[in-house]
Amino acid sequence: MRYLHFSTCPIGHLHSSAFQAKETNMRQDILILGATGRVGKTLVKQILAEGDTNPRVHRNPTNIVGLASSANFVYAEKGLEDEAIISFLSKPKAGYESLVSLDALLDDAIGSHQDLAFVDVTAVGEGMYHFHQQVLEHSPFSVVTANKLPLANASYDDFRKLTRQVSRYGYRCSVMAGAEAVAMIRDLVDVHDPPITIEGCFSGTLGYLCSQLEEGKLFSEAIRDAHAQGYTEPDPRDDLNGMDVARKLVILARTGGHPIYIGENLEVNPFIPAEFLTDEPVEDFMAKLEMADGYFAGRISEAAAKGNTLRYVARFSAKGSELQASTCLEDVPINGPLGSLHGTANKIVITSHTYKPISPYIVQAPGAGLEITAQN
Amino acid sequence: MRYLHFSTCPIGHLHSSAFQAKETNMRQDILILGATGRVGKTLVKQILAEGDTNPRVHRNPTNIVGLASSANFVYAEKGLEDEAIISFLSKPKAGYESLVSLDALLDDAIGSHQDLAFVDVTAVGEGMYHFHQQVLEHSPFSVVTANKLPLANASYDDFRKLTRQVSRYGYRCSVMAGAEAVAMIRDLVDVHDPPITIEGCFSGTLGYLCSQLEEGKLFSEAIRDAHAQGYTEPDPRDDLNGMDVARKLVILARTGGHPIYIGENLEVNPFIPAEFLTDEPVEDFMAKLEMADGYFAGRISEAAAKGNTLRYVARFSAKGSELQASTCLEDVPINGPLGSLHGTANKIVITSHTYKPISPYIVQAPGAGLEITAQN
Repeated sequence: MRYLHFSTCPIGHLHSSAFQAKETNMRQDILILGATGRVGKTLVKQILAEGDTNPRVHRNPTNIVGLASSANFVYAEKGLEDEAIISFLSKPKAGYESLVSLDALLDDAIGSHQDLAFVDVTAVGEGMYHFHQQVLEHSPFSVVTANKLPLANASYDDFRKLTRQVSRYGYRCSVMAGAEAVAMIRDLVDVHDPPITIEGCFSGTLGYLCSQLEEGKLFSEAIRDAHAQGYTEPDPRDDLNGMDVARKLVILARTGGHPIYIGENLEVNPFIPAEFLTDEPVEDFMAKLEMADGYFAGRISEAAAKGNTLRYVARFSAKGSELQASTCLEDVPINGPLGSLHGTANKIVITSHTYKPISPYIVQAPGAGLEITAQN
Repeated sequence: MRYLHFSTCPIGHLHSSAFQAKETNMRQDILILGATGRVGKTLVKQILAEGDTNPRVHRNPTNIVGLASSANFVYAEKGLEDEAIISFLSKPKAGYESLVSLDALLDDAIGSHQDLAFVDVTAVGEGMYHFHQQVLEHSPFSVVTANKLPLANASYDDFRKLTRQVSRYGYRCSVMAGAEAVAMIRDLVDVHDPPITIEGCFSGTLGYLCSQLEEGKLFSEAIRDAHAQGYTEPDPRDDLNGMDVARKLVILARTGGHPIYIGENLEVNPFIPAEFLTDEPVEDFMAKLEMADGYFAGRISEAAAKGNTLRYVARFSAKGSELQASTCLEDVPINGPLGSLHGTANKIVITSHTYKPISPYIVQAPGAGLEITAQN
């Protein structure tokens, strides 16, 4: 599900994240890493379907010069033909060089391109930070990333190095894609009014589950449905462990100038009790979901008795240099700013010195809804 | 009150609107038009107070090279000293050349600057469109405008010409400054998913009045208080005629690619019944406010009887090429998205092909609250 947020309006993010300031009618060469994944395929489909490659339709036409998966690669200096793109996506294992070396890829690109954006829609942790950093340091190219790992796993200093140049490192699609949360926080920092608190619901998947529980569905039933419809990660524990939400909070708080680290000053309380998050095969996990039904039914009825409901809430606050952050399944007022969210919608509430708690900055945007649209 | 939105985080807007993509540590020369007005003074104060001019504090230090009022001008090619700035603002009528000619100003700037941003915080209609257009066509400089008139009064084609280059024409501070409404709509257009409906409350002043009426205050009393505290325009009829909200809606709808014109496909229903909007002196208008008390008391109690409240709502919708837009004092559910707004807060709700009515894009941000902070 974490992928989905990228696909809400990918080219918008490409353009706005990295290329907004360029002249009109400049062709935008891109090379997509992770093109055969779920986001990658959706992104490519949207680029082709929406005429983004057509200079008569689009102000800055997109030109796909390369597609890479973990094991395959296709490239054409002047841009790939639609047929080559479709063929790569439908038969990713055949007919291309194998074992893509990112460093070699970068070297080739430096030799043949003046300008290029690498679009990282992988979910790869290892190595990707290194690659992003290489692009920034050793080429004139840009990176646009929907992959949160390079940013959330990096040290705070490395995070700052990556994100220093707005024009070369676009990452707003990594958190609440389709919303301007990252840009908003950047602006606050720019005017010396950094966020003091950030709270919100950032997971379409967990929002959807909360809505299902609120409607009286059993947890096991809700998860199986969501899994069958592809709303969760292939292993739903990747949603239920809360790490994806925690990574988003890291990215937002660090964008706000706060050195947040998961497990240090950010406490991740999983959505499902931790004892369910074993390393047994996913089938075994799915087979014992009923064991959690009682827990969730209890939480929901406890909450309901107080006029409340459950939401998986990410919270950050800074009191001077004292930083606190957490993600937690919370009991919140059903008519309050988070309790009133429905289904997969995401919401973020930011306060700062000027955005007082009584009139904070609030953005609400759909989570998975758009992706479903995009896939259809 | 329409000024206030600019001052929420002006430099953020300067940077984000026009200069986001530039390299770090590049000095940003600006020339402020309307510097002795309310927004102008607040802007300059904030620039000086926040260390925006200090390269050690700010990534892109701001350098004020010129200040202009309607009759006076101060300029220094390398940048003005703080004393010169303060002195100009405190004694705007003394010691400087009079009768600023914008065209001469531009010619001089072309001769002496490589890069420069004109910041228009005037409320001048006549001539400003021409000047903005001259800057774009005959110089390499940028314009950042909080002044809505050049955009709202222009023809749709002229609007498009002005706003074509994101990097050279920043106008997000003209509508819901401090929120990313303009950027969001731009993104939607960029991915061929233009807004289908736009609705919201865009006036801090009128929001404040609605809240006061909701609390049982008499209209006459609420207006007099707001006027005394400087929350309204010097002539409150400039808020009450609804034109400021209508202009904001024009700017948003046109940013969304829709040719909207006030009085043609945008019906402006004033906040106060039209018979009060005469051209008599402001004192006479203020003296007869009680005559409107009955009207507002009636509207409020009618609304309350249905569990509703009053809000001054701007609405735009496109059905194919059929465009409809209006601004109107409406009866809305008190717990609904607009009825739940408090005080001066602004809100915008956008739907499009992918942002369905069931999960729209929503931004809520303070209206005048920040400006009050900025002034203190």
